[in-house]
Amino acid sequence: LIPRGNSHFPSILDRLNSGEVVIGDGGFVFALEKRGYVKAGPWTPEAAVEHPEAVRQLHREFLRAGSNVMQTFTFYASDDKLENRGNYVAEKISGRKVNEAACDIAREVAGEGDALVAGGVSQTPSYLSCKSESEVKTIFRKQLEVFTSKNVDFLIAEYFEHVEEAQWAVQVLKESGKPVAATLCIGPTGDLNGVSPGDCAVKLGKAGADIVGVNCHFDPMTCLKTVKLMKEGLEAAKMKVHLMIQPLAYHTPDCGHQGFIDLPEFPFALEPRVLSRWDVHKYAREAYNLGVRYIGGCCGFEPYHIRAIAEELAPERGFLPQASEKHGSWGSGLDMHTKPWVRARARKEYWEKLSPASGRPFCPSLSHPDSWGVTKGHADLLQQKEATSEEQLKQLFTKQKEKCCV
Amino acid sequence: LIPRGNSHFPSILDRLNSGEVVIGDGGFVFALEKRGYVKAGPWTPEAAVEHPEAVRQLHREFLRAGSNVMQTFTFYASDDKLENRGNYVAEKISGRKVNEAACDIAREVAGEGDALVAGGVSQTPSYLSCKSESEVKTIFRKQLEVFTSKNVDFLIAEYFEHVEEAQWAVQVLKESGKPVAATLCIGPTGDLNGVSPGDCAVKLGKAGADIVGVNCHFDPMTCLKTVKLMKEGLEAAKMKVHLMIQPLAYHTPDCGHQGFIDLPEFPFALEPRVLSRWDVHKYAREAYNLGVRYIGGCCGFEPYHIRAIAEELAPERGFLPQASEKHGSWGSGLDMHTKPWVRARARKEYWEKLSPASGRPFCPSLSHPDSWGVTKGHADLLQQKEATSEEQLKQLFTKQKEKCCV
Amino acid sequence: LIPRGNSHFPSILDRLNSGEVVIGDGGFVFALEKRGYVKAGPWTPEAAVEHPEAVRQLHREFLRAGSNVMQTFTFYASDDKLENRGNYVAEKISGRKVNEAACDIAREVAGEGDALVAGGVSQTPSYLSCKSESEVKTIFRKQLEVFTSKNVDFLIAEYFEHVEEAQWAVQVLKESGKPVAATLCIGPTGDLNGVSPGDCAVKLGKAGADIVGVNCHFDPMTCLKTVKLMKEGLEAAKMKVHLMIQPLAYHTPDCGHQGFIDLPEFPFALEPRVLSRWDVHKYAREAYNLGVRYIGGCCGFEPYHIRAIAEELAPERGFLPQASEKHGSWGSGLDMHTKPWVRARARKEYWEKLSPASGRPFCPSLSHPDSWGVTKGHADLLQQKEATSEEQLKQLFTKQKEKCCV
Amino acid sequence: LIPRGNSHFPSILDRLNSGEVVIGDGGFVFALEKRGYVKAGPWTPEAAVEHPEAVRQLHREFLRAGSNVMQTFTFYASDDKLENRGNYVAEKISGRKVNEAACDIAREVAGEGDALVAGGVSQTPSYLSCKSESEVKTIFRKQLEVFTSKNVDFLIAEYFEHVEEAQWAVQVLKESGKPVAATLCIGPTGDLNGVSPGDCAVKLGKAGADIVGVNCHFDPMTCLKTVKLMKEGLEAAKMKVHLMIQPLAYHTPDCGHQGFIDLPEFPFALEPRVLSRWDVHKYAREAYNLGVRYIGGCCGFEPYHIRAIAEELAPERGFLPQASEKHGSWGSGLDMHTKPWVRARARKEYWEKLSPASGRPFCPSLSHPDSWGVTKGHADLLQQKEATSEEQLKQLFTKQKEKCCV
Repeated sequence: LIPRGNSHFPSILDRLNSGEVVIGDGGFVFALEKRGYVKAGPWTPEAAVEHPEAVRQLHREFLRAGSNVMQTFTFYASDDKLENRGNYVAEKISGRKVNEAACDIAREVAGEGDALVAGGVSQTPSYLSCKSESEVKTIFRKQLEVFTSKNVDFLIAEYFEHVEEAQWAVQVLKESGKPVAATLCIGPTGDLNGVSPGDCAVKLGKAGADIVGVNCHFDPMTCLKTVKLMKEGLEAAKMKVHLMIQPLAYHTPDCGHQGFIDLPEFPFALEPRVLSRWDVHKYAREAYNLGVRYIGGCCGFEPYHIRAIAEELAPERGFLPQASEKHGSWGSGLDMHTKPWVRARARKEYWEKLSPASGRPFCPSLSHPDSWGVTKGHADLLQQKEATSEEQLKQLFTKQKEKCCV
Repeated sequence: LIPRGNSHFPSILDRLNSGEVVIGDGGFVFALEKRGYVKAGPWTPEAAVEHPEAVRQLHREFLRAGSNVMQTFTFYASDDKLENRGNYVAEKISGRKVNEAACDIAREVAGEGDALVAGGVSQTPSYLSCKSESEVKTIFRKQLEVFTSKNVDFLIAEYFEHVEEAQWAVQVLKESGKPVAATLCIGPTGDLNGVSPGDCAVKLGKAGADIVGVNCHFDPMTCLKTVKLMKEGLEAAKMKVHLMIQPLAYHTPDCGHQGFIDLPEFPFALEPRVLSRWDVHKYAREAYNLGVRYIGGCCGFEPYHIRAIAEELAPERGFLPQASEKHGSWGSGLDMHTKPWVRARARKEYWEKLSPASGRPFCPSLSHPDSWGVTKGHADLLQQKEATSEEQLKQLFTKQKEKCCV
Repeated sequence: LIPRGNSHFPSILDRLNSGEVVIGDGGFVFALEKRGYVKAGPWTPEAAVEHPEAVRQLHREFLRAGSNVMQTFTFYASDDKLENRGNYVAEKISGRKVNEAACDIAREVAGEGDALVAGGVSQTPSYLSCKSESEVKTIFRKQLEVFTSKNVDFLIAEYFEHVEEAQWAVQVLKESGKPVAATLCIGPTGDLNGVSPGDCAVKLGKAGADIVGVNCHFDPMTCLKTVKLMKEGLEAAKMKVHLMIQPLAYHTPDCGHQGFIDLPEFPFALEPRVLSRWDVHKYAREAYNLGVRYIGGCCGFEPYHIRAIAEELAPERGFLPQASEKHGSWGSGLDMHTKPWVRARARKEYWEKLSPASGRPFCPSLSHPDSWGVTKGHADLLQQKEATSEEQLKQLFTKQKEKCCV
Repeated sequence: LIPRGNSHFPSILDRLNSGEVVIGDGGFVFALEKRGYVKAGPWTPEAAVEHPEAVRQLHREFLRAGSNVMQTFTFYASDDKLENRGNYVAEKISGRKVNEAACDIAREVAGEGDALVAGGVSQTPSYLSCKSESEVKTIFRKQLEVFTSKNVDFLIAEYFEHVEEAQWAVQVLKESGKPVAATLCIGPTGDLNGVSPGDCAVKLGKAGADIVGVNCHFDPMTCLKTVKLMKEGLEAAKMKVHLMIQPLAYHTPDCGHQGFIDLPEFPFALEPRVLSRWDVHKYAREAYNLGVRYIGGCCGFEPYHIRAIAEELAPERGFLPQASEKHGSWGSGLDMHTKPWVRARARKEYWEKLSPASGRPFCPSLSHPDSWGVTKGHADLLQQKEATSEEQLKQLFTKQKEKCCV
């Protein structure tokens, strides 16, 4: 084993280039909201300063579960976001302090195992309020300064609804000379300006991203479709870029163009949609089969979900994660139960085939997204795409964006 | 405020006698299983020794969420249980060490806020394998020695399927002179020997329990029915005993006599059944209205579920828990969202009325318990009770128990 | 075969006394509403005069399907009912004419096969508006005059919510000297005055009914529970009376004390609840096992549902109904299908195990009855029964009835 | 009113050309299967000879409900089909006799109201077993001879899975000089040879069809999508052809390329999927808005479903159907109910918004089609279409067809 710090310690690109599976981490803001450290609505990460022990513990759990990447807890930690929404924080904490604390915690836990530290930036209020390219880039550059000074291993631009802003982010992050990954929170119908997943992937690759993919907003099956379209776009453009996927841990077959935000259950009644560990096994296998090698999770992914990725891909990787010392693969921990019908659950076939009940007979199976009339569902949009010209579609999305900027 | 340690620091009985609402904590074994520190199947708490930081962090989250009681993480920590199932633990850890470590962690975190420490015992393999009363009592006494030496504030005998064993536990715990609470994991049809909830409550009170109620195995609505029957039994017997409730955080309207163990989803596909925070609000209100003043949770209860109890009862208690600094009451954290239809969710009426979808259209709403043919559902049993004599019913249950002992 | 008309042609009691299974018919008002001849709301049978061919055809279909009884289409055909609601009928048709026409049609079709004619009366507006016993009996007597003059084979008093009114009806019908059956539209919680099913059955038997049971308002499984309680009541009273059951063809596990009327889907959106023929097989078998020998259906039962009763009980009865010439038992008609996966459905095990999907993912599985707050669900009432004295319960129901009379 | 028989009695094309809404009839084979006259599996119409009264009555009910077209009950009545499967019919009945009887019954009932008679042909075993064009056409010509001799008003070629066979049928039927309608039982992904709905419509128009559209196999919403694609195809080809739609009365959002045959519930457990009358209102309105003027139903459509079309479009048509004398529009028949909460259902808004429960909490909302692995779902196929060339897709379908011919 090459010691971390040694320049031969394999980088994210070394790993992906060699065909290794890299396991990402799970969803910090949702997990910490449930633990009492992040406020739903603003979703900002001041807990890195206020309650470092809570953030550290979550990092550790992901590490134990098999994560190879500790993403700094810097989601929505750009200065414009913290100012915009952060006024509920009792004492004003500077953006710099939050980003620094997040880097320190990530580095500390990464050192406890075989993980890299990735500094992360996400979409900004500045872009949504139509600030200029240089203004938006200045925002990213401030976070990058911290990441550079803390010497993170690589960088991730994630959770972008507009590929344009993601391209700007990638361009800034590339200034560091470090590897850069970029993921959009889009579905198969493309970004909010109507750019298709294939085109998005190509644009990000041309901007300099070494790894592209999607995160958040949609469930694993939908994200796999989107990444497949990205892959096809890249292949058509004859570009070699690594693929990455970090979906929701919620079943969202019913969501529309803008994803789970529009589901009526967002964000406080998503419980019935949470993936079981067996859903994650299936997702991990299909992601692997599609050729994706950076496989993780976003909102809703708890440590045990990440462990399920690691257990599913243990044959390929050759080892189990540390947390599997407390987990019988495919339910085998039940094999000594006193009741014979519970013992009978200690096998793969049982859990693979189970269709779990909700215990909620007064609730429906699917919901209509709230914005139904505005952004429409996938099916309608796909149909619309065929029926209308590319030009008309762009106009439609532009109008939506303009409305959003007002 | 009276400093802890001072003999005037109010005890659990001082609080309940004065009409105060005491908020319990949530489910340690299920939460720590998901975090990677407890193995499903054995469900034993050796993590108190192996990973104290993880146990400490969970205690802290419950404390922040409003818990007034830190239960020692000593579920299934009797020597016979640890020996029986504990052989998956790499290095053998003595039961004494586990119990001591759990007490130390609980005391440390309790000191960070206004919480009492409760030492907990639960049902034993010894009883299930038909050991004698004195043998079973010896088992409880070993744990009690630790709790006494660590000077916990009070004691809880919880998770008993047979009131007889719970009575023995209470008798042992009362030897300490400390207040004792006792909760059974039974439903409205009574314990596994066919003793009704009302009779169970009376028996526990007579054994010396200061607080009686139920925990685990059933959802809040079912547990409320059971506690109501206990209350009526106590009233009929003119006994004054405090009531306590710590249900599952899973919707289980479909479970039978032995609770959620028999549901096909137990324990690895319960996700669609998890309570939302709004379900907890309703539960807390109904528990309060029933006259229960010790209100907490069991398996499935995460810190945000406990916070929901504290927020629902904030008007009665006069204050919000610490973790509410990161939670807008009834969804108010969404009031600045950029999308108008998401802003519209920042109100009580919205979340109270929402029937959340599962996102799983290929799954049913309810399941048949696996042991259907053996123990039958509630409805059938209730009917059977009316149709058959008390004597016949006891024979039925006795036969079941005998089978279990073989 | 003994020719009809011959005094040795076996009567309904001959058949039941000999242990024969008698198959009833299905639901006329619901079937004819869908065919365009009965108006939902009034539900009156003037079609017997207006469109005899439609009524005749439905009788014929039930006969072909295996019915041994042609019930005259005289539901709600008492004079007070026809006056009360019948004013939507263009030309005023006298009650006498409706009852006579219904008898003629039933007799005509009965003569085409091995069926008896049963004259039917049902609950009256007079009783609900608190008219005297003699006034209500006068109403029944008017219909009985027609049945006597048309010489029906036996009589049925059906669809009574109050056993008292049913007793009056039985007393009147017995004046004819013909066999009398009486069925209440009640569930396991008893009639609307709080009289238990067991007591209802005894009262009806004492009033002179030769056959007692339930019809309408609840699904087969619920009706079976009610008839079981009736059977137990009769056994306790050492009375020998035949049992009869004619439930809804709708799944209604969620309905409360007053049955499907209170379900929000009544009467125009019950489609998703309709029994499949396989549900009927199960019902017929369980009814037979319970010892019921007069087995039919009420609202929702179409000819193919009745055929399913006849096919399930063909081994016991020794023959298939005529309509089975157009039905492969247990799906065997599919055994020559070109697609192998459809051919695979030509077997009993397939249909028995199938859990049919609704194709409605935006709909719940269960509903709350509209009158929730007023009459409560079964579970609550059952519990209430235990908690409150018989006296209190009667007061509760009396109050409800008084309100209804105002 | 112009008397029928008079040469000025308006033809189907007169009506459609003038912009009139023509209402089709419902599903004969499914309705008569439930009534006991058609055998599921073979689905042949020998009842026209064996039980003319049953067929006549169903025609009459559709007429009363508002149908303007009496389709002869000649589905699957080609000689090759009757021979192929008809051997369960006790006495051999010639195809000619069946077709003649069906014409006579349709004509008789049509004469009772304002309806036209349409002679119908459907897909043949000859085509599926790869017989030549001239052999297949000979089959159609035999049925046409009867239709011509009985002087039906127009002709319908319906229920074709391959547009090629439908073209051959249209070419034969056009030999009569009568108007010809042609409907395929296909979905938005096109016919079983992979020809798109738009291309199918153009081919049928070019073959001589005056009216084109779809019938059977899919629910109204899916059929509307298919007809929309047909409309767009015809517009792109600048062809003027009338549009027609006769969908299933079952909710089938989950079915794949070959429609409801592949759903596990077909054909004996489709009950939970049946459309309510309110679903039909919505369908009729959307069909009208799409510009379709020949609007009817196929399998599952009962007379009350057809009445719902007529009631929804009464404002446009200026009159209600006869059967509306027994139906209060939008539930108004409940306005005198004794219970206030049932009276509250006597309004449009109530029924429009109701999400009806299935009463089946142990069942899922959606099913996976049995042939999943073979023909795939819509979504996948649509995606495949984008991903693969038109050529590859055709090969895929050709292979499937070849397999079917073996």
